[in-house]
Formats: sequence, C-alpha cells, structure tokens
Amino acid sequence: MSFKKVKGGVCAPQGFRGGAVSCGIKEVGNPRDDLALIYSDHPCVSAGTFTTNRVKAAPVKVTQAHLRAMDLRAVIANSGNANACTGVPGITDARQMAKTVASSLGIRQREVGVCSTGVIGLPLPMQRMEEGLHTLPTKLTRDGGRQVAEAIMTSDTTVKEIAITATVGGKKIRIGACAKGAGMICPSMATMLCFVTTDASISKACLQKSLLEAVEGSFNRICIDGDMSTNDTVLVLANGQAGGKPITRRSKACREFSEALQHVLLELAKACVRDGERVSKFVTLNVQGASLYLDAKKVAEAIAKSALVKSSWNGGDPNWGRIIHAIGYSRARIREELIDIAYNGKAACEGGLMAKTPLKTLRDIASRDQFTITVDLHLGKADYTIYTSDLSPEYIDFNRSEYAYWKNAGID
Amino acid sequence: MSFKKVKGGVCAPQGFRGGAVSCGIKEVGNPRDDLALIYSDHPCVSAGTFTTNRVKAAPVKVTQAHLRAMDLRAVIANSGNANACTGVPGITDARQMAKTVASSLGIRQREVGVCSTGVIGLPLPMQRMEEGLHTLPTKLTRDGGRQVAEAIMTSDTTVKEIAITATVGGKKIRIGACAKGAGMICPSMATMLCFVTTDASISKACLQKSLLEAVEGSFNRICIDGDMSTNDTVLVLANGQAGGKPITRRSKACREFSEALQHVLLELAKACVRDGERVSKFVTLNVQGASLYLDAKKVAEAIAKSALVKSSWNGGDPNWGRIIHAIGYSRARIREELIDIAYNGKAACEGGLMAKTPLKTLRDIASRDQFTITVDLHLGKADYTIYTSDLSPEYIDFNRSEYAYWKNAGID
Repeated sequence: MSFKKVKGGVCAPQGFRGGAVSCGIKEVGNPRDDLALIYSDHPCVSAGTFTTNRVKAAPVKVTQAHLRAMDLRAVIANSGNANACTGVPGITDARQMAKTVASSLGIRQREVGVCSTGVIGLPLPMQRMEEGLHTLPTKLTRDGGRQVAEAIMTSDTTVKEIAITATVGGKKIRIGACAKGAGMICPSMATMLCFVTTDASISKACLQKSLLEAVEGSFNRICIDGDMSTNDTVLVLANGQAGGKPITRRSKACREFSEALQHVLLELAKACVRDGERVSKFVTLNVQGASLYLDAKKVAEAIAKSALVKSSWNGGDPNWGRIIHAIGYSRARIREELIDIAYNGKAACEGGLMAKTPLKTLRDIASRDQFTITVDLHLGKADYTIYTSDLSPEYIDFNRSEYAYWKNAGID
Repeated sequence: MSFKKVKGGVCAPQGFRGGAVSCGIKEVGNPRDDLALIYSDHPCVSAGTFTTNRVKAAPVKVTQAHLRAMDLRAVIANSGNANACTGVPGITDARQMAKTVASSLGIRQREVGVCSTGVIGLPLPMQRMEEGLHTLPTKLTRDGGRQVAEAIMTSDTTVKEIAITATVGGKKIRIGACAKGAGMICPSMATMLCFVTTDASISKACLQKSLLEAVEGSFNRICIDGDMSTNDTVLVLANGQAGGKPITRRSKACREFSEALQHVLLELAKACVRDGERVSKFVTLNVQGASLYLDAKKVAEAIAKSALVKSSWNGGDPNWGRIIHAIGYSRARIREELIDIAYNGKAACEGGLMAKTPLKTLRDIASRDQFTITVDLHLGKADYTIYTSDLSPEYIDFNRSEYAYWKNAGID
C-alpha cells in the first residue's frame, strides 16, 4: 500500500477545523499558544487509548467517561499543566473545559474530549483559561492544523504532524494527525498526546480495532526514558465525509485502513523519539529468534531501558557487553551461547562471544546519528522491534528541575 | 546489639591473610593492584550468593560449582576484566586461576572461589596474570585486608571495607569484609563483589541462612542505575578460630550472627550507593502502608529506577509529581487519593494532592546531600526500604565509552 503525504496536519481531512490561543498556562504573559481545539463540522465515530498508569490525570478520566457515553467530535487540549494529582477540583476543571467549549460549539459536553500535558500536581489556572475557552470555538479554521500541533508542544523542539491520502476500500480518504511527547516516553500504551482525524466512513468497531493495532505497532514500541505518563492519550475522530458505505470490521477495507493508520502513528512515534529530550541518537532495535513474542519484547525493553546501554550509545561505543548483560536480566528465555548482536548488520557478538568485525567498523556505525541493532536469540521465530534513543548528560540536566513552572504558578 | 569497629578489613578475623599484586589487567604498565587473594590458614565453612542475571560470567559459574562441591577457604579475584561472555576459554581461564593459586597454597582447586570484575567480552590476559597467580600466595600477610579492598576496585573512588567485633552466643567474634561496586547497581541479588570473613564457629546451615537474610536486607536494597551485573558475587568464609561450639541454625546465636552480618553488609551496601558513579545524592526511600510486601517493593523500585525522578533529585527539586507518576506505573496496588509523600518528614503530597508545606522548605531538604523520602500508601502494614541515588549528567558522561579498555587490550 502506498500513501501520499499532503498538507494540513490534523485539519487535512474534509470537515475538520482547528485553532489555538495563548492563555498563559505555560507562563504568564508568554504569547505561545497553549490551548488548542479540534472540531468536526459533522458527527463522528471515535475511539481512544489511554495511559495504563494507575495514577491518571483528571482529563484522562473525564475523556474516558465521555467516550463511553458518546462519540467525540471535538478535542480541547492544553499544554503547560497536566491537571494530574489535582483531586475532585481537577475533575471539575476538566469537565468545565469540555462544557465551555461544547456550549460555544452548540454540541453536547460529552462530545468533547479533554487532554492536558505539562507539570503534575498544580491546579489548572481556570481563570486565565476562561476567555480562551470561550473565544477559541469562534476562531477555528480549515488550516488550523499546524497551530494545534504547535500549541500542544511542551518540551518538544519540533512540530509533529502528518497527513496522508490513502485508497481504502476503493475510496480515497485522508488521515491527519499531530502529536506531542518528548520525555516520559515508554513502551506501554499511548505514551503521549496524539490526535488523529479522518474523513473515512468507518464503523466504530473497525476504528477501535485499527487504533489498538496501530498504537501497538507504533507508540507502544518507542522508549526514551522508560517513564510512563499519567496523561497519555491517543484519540481518533472519523467523520465519514469521504463518503461511501462505512468500512466494517473484518473487511479488506478495514485492514487497509488499519495499515494506513499505523503508518501515520509510526511516523509520529518515530518523530517523538528523534525529538527525545536532549538526546542525540535514533536506534532501531530488532530482536529476533525468540521462543515467544513476550520474550522478544522483554529483551527489547530491557535493552532500551538500560541506563548503561543508553549511555554507551550516547558515546558512540558499540558496547555489546552491556547489551548482553541487559538481555541476561530481561527475564526472557535465552541461551547465552546462541546470542548474536549486530550493528547495521555487522556482527559485534556471535554465539555470545566477541565477533571478528574490526572494532573500528562497529565504532563508525555506533557514532552515527542513527543505526540499527539486531539481536538474534536463535531459539524460535518471534520478533519485536523498538525505536529508542540514547540517554545524554543534557537529558539529565534538562530534567533536573521544574521549579520554574512552580514559581510561575505563584508557588514558592 | 552493639558492634565495635576494628581495623583490618577482610583480614581482621583470626587466621585470615590477604594480599594483592599488579598484573596489568586494568592497564598494561599500570602499577595499580588488580589481582587479590584472601586465604584462611584453617579450613572454613562457606556460603555465597550470586547474580540472577541469566548471562553469568565464567568465574560465577566456576565458583558456584566449587561451592557445591566443597567449602572455600581462599578467594582469588581480579579487577579490570569481567571474564564474562568469554565462552569455554573463559571457564578454562577461571579454573586455571583457582588451580594455580590452589597449588601454591597446597589446597584443592575447588577450595578456591574465583571472582572477576571489569569490562565484558574480553578474554582474560592470562599470560600477564601468570606470574602474579604464582607469587601472590607467597605474599599474604595478616594486614593485607586494605590491599585486597583496593585491588578489587574498578570505577570505585573510595575503598569499601569494614571489620567489627560482636558477641555472638556469648563468644566474641570478628567479621571482616570488603566490597566493590559503583555502577550496575540494582536491587536483585548480590549486585557487586563482596568478600566476608569471620572467625565465628558456625554451621553451614546457619551461615547460609544468615547470608541470604543479610543480602536481602542490604545489597538487594540498593539501586544506582537499575542495571544488574553478570558477575555479582558475595562470598563468606568462616574458619571457627574464635572457638566454641558451632552456632547452629534456629539458635539465638544464629540470629545474633545474622544481625551482625547484616550490619556489616548494610554498611558496605550504603558505601556503594554513596560512591555511585559520579552521583551526588544519597536517598533513603521508605515505602509504608502497602497491602503486600511485594507491593511496597514494586513501588520502591519503580521510584528508585525512574530516570525522571533521579534527574529531579540531581537538581534538588522536590518533585513529588514524578514520584507519584512512578508509583502509578509500578503495578503495585495503590489508591491515588490515599498517597502521602514526605521529604525528611515534611509533607509534599497528602492524599494524592499537593501538601501545604512551603516549597522552599522542601527545596531546602531536596538540595541536601542526603535525605529521606517516605511514601505512605495507607492501604496496609507492609513496608520496604531502598537506598538509592540521583542520576547525574556526569554519570552518563562517565559511562559513554569503554573504548579505552578495548584499546588497552589491543583491540581496535
């Protein structure tokens, strides 16, 4: 299947509009947008996946409830404050965000998804957001996709948006999406904010199934620091404006849609890794030859989360010893003497021992901005791929203190 | 129970001698000792605990086999090379180390424990070690404890040794010990090299039980980077020279011995955290009020391993939001609205919400070299304590490359 990239991001599919305003949530007086709205002029079917963290932010709880009750056709999202660990007032604030927007848009409160990202534990500055929540619905435009993508950024340094056309069930459809996420990226569920729109005509069952599959193949396979956020959310809205009979589950068209959706999400997931907080390498980690899928996954995640392995990537050191030691504590079934490890196909370790490839060759590969590590366990046929990054001194430095946020919120 | 510190480290108990030589394992021509030997002039009972990493270094496999067959009365250890992922030749080398030393000492090969620590994947430079292995047994002295402790150091910046006298079963006994370990420190089994000697007269059953308990309460409760080595080993040798009837299991004396041993190991374990590679904080993490012991442990380990939490400690940021987010993904049973988090007893989070303690008070505590974080889940009575550290930009920088080792070994 081939996809054609188009412009417009999350507003590229027909019938979607977006916009953003600045409410001083990130910083009082800072003109950067921090409140974004996506809206479909037509009713949608919708689906979502959420963080599996047991500490869930208020907007996650509210959006999950809304999704259970109705289909979403709008998403209101703020950056700069996660509205997490904010108790009952936090729930009230998240509901109020949906309510204000819904009333301006003339839709029901439960048709609005709510998302927040930023610092944990601070109440939302609802007073400062009041005006923005009222005026934003009047400022939506067909080319507001970029504005939305920019407004949800926190520590992100690049805008993450994509839109494609694809032929699904013989019909040309569009999928648009934007995402944010730079730290707290870990393989387990959604792992950041991502909003997807499509004009495909699709059944709810097919949409849900496609989303779960696409997230499993994309956002669940990236790892920056091994942490998992309280706010991770992926929402998809489909308004059917491309026309035609709804794509139903178990159809060829559903598989085609699923593939297109995964392509979109994987592009964004990789963009999140590339933009990992102050990291410098993009590493594709292929684990092959495991007895079980879960073993392949355990091995990949142990390697991708090891501080020592990630430090060596930062230094361009093809340190297969640290990789094999992480494989050893992954709890997967392994046999040390069967393990092969290669950098861009060049053997670093064969049968658990140092391979004959000159160290210089391996060092050349490991010093590049991106490379692929292949681990073959030679026990079976299961495999798993993770996209991950190094861990840099700058990452630690960048994450040393959130004091500025607290000070900005008047807490000292 | 009170213990009195004495001098002499691992050679403090009666009948033990030690020594070390330089073989150029760490670096050719480097005069730093890198081969150490501990020997008891009398037969011993012995016990050991080892890494649970499925990739085990050759010396671990060899020492486990020796311990199954006989009681150890000598330990030969080298630093600079882990003899891990070295295949059958690695096993041969480890056996050869034991054999050479045993023959000089006039004891059996299987009475010698073998340990290695350093870089993974390189063969031991046996040729350079040959002379040292032969001459070291002739250079042992009663005051060689310090030399042994220094010779096993790798990235350690402080010597880690201790010796105490204790009254066990009415008899005065001595316990001496030394340890190394600065990176790759993670709660799960032994986690570094540690050699313990005692002149207590003790049954093998009591010694084994005491060691397992003491390791569980010490080395299994420290965490620097969440990595687990291929070589971790704790060995204890008891030669009975303090006299008296052997201490048997289930006796009051066995409990007293166990307590004394745990005191010794906990001191060394804490010293390892304090000397964590380029880290700056010593954090005691108490998790209380869990339903189950395993829940308390999961919560403590999730916090202690979180790169984001550790970064905030580095910055002196009392960031309870990151702590609660780690609690949320720990997979322990929790209720967000019941969680309290305190720094040195000052509430940072109460009932899952920001507490009223002024931020300045918390920042003052978090900016100290050491502080205690208490997490109360308010669900039950189970608790767990971990000793851990921050993660620093310098840690990453320090671990970026092991190329110097490889170059030193002639591999380029």
